[in-house]
Amino acid sequence: MMNRKIVVIGGSAAGPKAAAKARRTDEAADITLIQKGADLSMASCGYPYYVGGVFDNRNMLLATPAGVIRDPGFFKKVKNINALPNTEVTKIDRDKKLVHCRSLLDASTFTTPYDKLIIATGCSPRIPNVEGIELDGISTLLSMKDADYLRKIRDEKSIKKAVVVGGGLIGIETCEALQLAGIEVTIIEMLPQLLTFLDKELAQLVQNHISSKSVNIVTDNGVKSFLGKDGKLTAVKLQNGTELPCELAVIAIGVTPNSSLAAEAGLQVGQTGGIVTDEYMRTSDQDIYAAGDCVEVTHRITGSPVHAPFGDLANLEGRVAGENAASDATKKFGGTIHTGICKIFDFSAGSTGLSAKMAQRNGIKNIETVINASPDCPVFMGGKLLVSKLMVDKDNRQILGYQCVGPGDVSKQLASAAMAIMGKLTIEDIANADLPYAPPFSLAIDHFIASAHIMQNKLCAALEGISCEDVFNDGCDKKSLFILDVRSPAEFEEMRLGIKEVLIPLGALRTRLSDLPEDKSTPIVCYCKISLRGYEAALIIKAAGWTNVRVMEGGIMAWPYPKEK
Amino acid sequence: MMNRKIVVIGGSAAGPKAAAKARRTDEAADITLIQKGADLSMASCGYPYYVGGVFDNRNMLLATPAGVIRDPGFFKKVKNINALPNTEVTKIDRDKKLVHCRSLLDASTFTTPYDKLIIATGCSPRIPNVEGIELDGISTLLSMKDADYLRKIRDEKSIKKAVVVGGGLIGIETCEALQLAGIEVTIIEMLPQLLTFLDKELAQLVQNHISSKSVNIVTDNGVKSFLGKDGKLTAVKLQNGTELPCELAVIAIGVTPNSSLAAEAGLQVGQTGGIVTDEYMRTSDQDIYAAGDCVEVTHRITGSPVHAPFGDLANLEGRVAGENAASDATKKFGGTIHTGICKIFDFSAGSTGLSAKMAQRNGIKNIETVINASPDCPVFMGGKLLVSKLMVDKDNRQILGYQCVGPGDVSKQLASAAMAIMGKLTIEDIANADLPYAPPFSLAIDHFIASAHIMQNKLCAALEGISCEDVFNDGCDKKSLFILDVRSPAEFEEMRLGIKEVLIPLGALRTRLSDLPEDKSTPIVCYCKISLRGYEAALIIKAAGWTNVRVMEGGIMAWPYPKEK
Repeated sequence: MMNRKIVVIGGSAAGPKAAAKARRTDEAADITLIQKGADLSMASCGYPYYVGGVFDNRNMLLATPAGVIRDPGFFKKVKNINALPNTEVTKIDRDKKLVHCRSLLDASTFTTPYDKLIIATGCSPRIPNVEGIELDGISTLLSMKDADYLRKIRDEKSIKKAVVVGGGLIGIETCEALQLAGIEVTIIEMLPQLLTFLDKELAQLVQNHISSKSVNIVTDNGVKSFLGKDGKLTAVKLQNGTELPCELAVIAIGVTPNSSLAAEAGLQVGQTGGIVTDEYMRTSDQDIYAAGDCVEVTHRITGSPVHAPFGDLANLEGRVAGENAASDATKKFGGTIHTGICKIFDFSAGSTGLSAKMAQRNGIKNIETVINASPDCPVFMGGKLLVSKLMVDKDNRQILGYQCVGPGDVSKQLASAAMAIMGKLTIEDIANADLPYAPPFSLAIDHFIASAHIMQNKLCAALEGISCEDVFNDGCDKKSLFILDVRSPAEFEEMRLGIKEVLIPLGALRTRLSDLPEDKSTPIVCYCKISLRGYEAALIIKAAGWTNVRVMEGGIMAWPYPKEK
Repeated sequence: MMNRKIVVIGGSAAGPKAAAKARRTDEAADITLIQKGADLSMASCGYPYYVGGVFDNRNMLLATPAGVIRDPGFFKKVKNINALPNTEVTKIDRDKKLVHCRSLLDASTFTTPYDKLIIATGCSPRIPNVEGIELDGISTLLSMKDADYLRKIRDEKSIKKAVVVGGGLIGIETCEALQLAGIEVTIIEMLPQLLTFLDKELAQLVQNHISSKSVNIVTDNGVKSFLGKDGKLTAVKLQNGTELPCELAVIAIGVTPNSSLAAEAGLQVGQTGGIVTDEYMRTSDQDIYAAGDCVEVTHRITGSPVHAPFGDLANLEGRVAGENAASDATKKFGGTIHTGICKIFDFSAGSTGLSAKMAQRNGIKNIETVINASPDCPVFMGGKLLVSKLMVDKDNRQILGYQCVGPGDVSKQLASAAMAIMGKLTIEDIANADLPYAPPFSLAIDHFIASAHIMQNKLCAALEGISCEDVFNDGCDKKSLFILDVRSPAEFEEMRLGIKEVLIPLGALRTRLSDLPEDKSTPIVCYCKISLRGYEAALIIKAAGWTNVRVMEGGIMAWPYPKEK
């Protein structure tokens, strides 16, 4: 038997992973890796940290942990893979099982035969089709070249003002990198909030943190045009007419799958624009696999195809595609739950599963959410206050989604939730989960478990919640609510909302029930710093006969609006 | 109807939690909390950090996050709970539904009636029955009084040498606290290793770290007697005759459930010594619940009753007991998977599910384990190398246990694994888990997912593993193995085992196969720093016809023995 010929198109993340796994699966296979760019196997998620100066050695983005650059020599010697950088695949000939290639160095063309083909062509940045887009000083942050360009700007300290167009993950990471370089940054976002993977209330808390770092944030506004002089960017003009002077603009309004090569070869491309694959990462052609940012995969909760351009999934998909291509195995990739996280100055923020917004968009209606504000570990260990939102399906009480933001590291909370979603755990399972506890790492009742407890209280109607947003909109203007802060006078003196709230400390409440509205149907809202005492207050008041008593979820710590003090 | 009378015996963790949850469940209930000690609701897991000077304000161990001391006044005002500290329950009269109490302040006695009783009497330290145990200078670290005593020693700087008897969680935490106070510490452990919740190979890595902090470790040895002069401790005499001069000894050889009160009342007590409870935390008496360190609970994996004295479980059990006692609800507590974690100087170490040792003891035989050494996040983000051990049931491919040790924080890895065990996830589920990835938080392939990948390779026999221990025992003495290090010459120059290994860098291996033993049945062991390249080398060698090729799991980073350099 002839050695199996495996050709991989794309040398960034999924491609090299697929090629390496194919090699480990079949030492005899003839494996070729074709890459359009000059570099191979780049740690592209690391670009913002290189630009921001977290590390200075560019080679670390291209090297193995042992410090060896992953160049064609490395691929040949170590992996016995023929890596062809600076080479574009112009056509896939499925009948003859050939790929047509062109060298980007000398324009020479050639063909390479395959038995199995793996397409990992990645994605491209969306670029707004507006006037001035061709000006010098406009970049993205999706390639080594982009990273080099922005790092040079950082090192030369030649630029004072920059605009980041797009408030998603990459936009935010870019914003931080530029701010760390001493550049004055404005973020522009078309939608009403940054970080749209978060629901609005949590996104607003992150936004407040970003603002506290002297970053300007403009939402509900897009770019009308880029203004320039002598071919160089001088300002961004917004749709509302505002001009923002700047010498640099970084576009980060999302990506689109590079699926045209596959489409031209007649492979099925889905509505998301990604190449359609089955659970084996196989395309509509049995001999062609695809993986990474160019494909669409199944959302494990909704069952719908989605485009999920995450670096970790690219690697997992590539691993499956590589093994199956090399051995006709039927290893499966199960899909995504859209788990994402990012660092934002001193905060981190992440989400797994569905947001309330996404649930609504997918027609999932019988849901319940809770906000939880509580520390990551005890106060005596320097605990930091996290705010999270948990969403469950009220029919089967399984978790649909979880978001968490706050100072420090929220990745443990998100990993716990992601695993709980993968395992279809119910609120009752999580309420008694046996998680690792010691004071340096967690509260005795872990933040995530506490969310499940609050959800149990809410599902049995012991706790009736109201969002900060609803209190802000109803309470502050209309005086319809009786708003009760149950903290201590000292805490009230130090920090308070100033929304005409009444202060009755929890410890005095049972003896001061006569200070509450006489009409027992008056809507009352209770809260404290995190609304645990607020919850206890609501229970006392309800037991005394008031009928419309709610708890402001997350308390003052979840309040994203200005405070009196 | 009369208000329900709920009496809670025990005011440490499970008791106050049960009482508070009972109050939130029924505002009208008459709730009494009886506590033998002077303090209430102490954060006892925080004692080592108070002793070690992580924080200085003793009140933080006794206060709410808002800074209010949880004294009887607090319980009365805020929770409407009658808290009786310094009060011992001497007898439970189940017929009359009364508890007999005695004040430890004035020796007065009284009785308190109950409708529902919750027993949360905690545990007591095991004390070795040896000569000299009564000497001044011998303590435990399980009470506020112990914490005060040890903190005073720290602050007075009057002591130079201490011995910690017992190398479990509390022993190790105490050791760190004393070492941080500038005291020279020796740990004594009867068994061959510290931290017996870890299997030996991981425990040895932690032990090496502790030794690097100038702590003396003595294993396989117990205390024969305590030596003293004028009633004061002067030395610990070991079973092998060694005398260790010291002014302080802290006993941390485990705890036993305080179940005698329950036993005397005729309640069922199990073989572990803990009070038997059902899934509702109900004892053998329908009106009596129990929770916390005094009970035994079900191990979720083995189904056996176990004593699991963990602070987080005490709270979860207390919450269930409190709700059920107050409302005749049937909330369930599902049991434990023995998840534990501790901080050890710059390391953390934890375990969830079964260790290989425990699996064996429980007769679970068809298991497979893998060691994984890989960083927590990319090298360019300052990644730290973690070492973990994953164990699966080969029949259903579900996870049975996971342990992880290393610098920094391993709690995310453990939480992921704990949730995976709770969700009965298989290796295939974990191999494609959608965990939160961004360079500050994780590798593109998370450490825990990588463990699942290695396990897949092992289960399909692509990877045949050998432990460092077997290489150490077989290879170093007997010359039976051909030992192959496949790192670069530069890495070999910097650090190497020195066990007669041959160096052939992976990149040169395919052209230097003739340097391998001619006899293709010769046992060969491959490794590198973490044994990823070692695995690739083994695949190359096997494909070339050698038949007995294994990978040393975890590579040099998992090697717990002395190295040549």
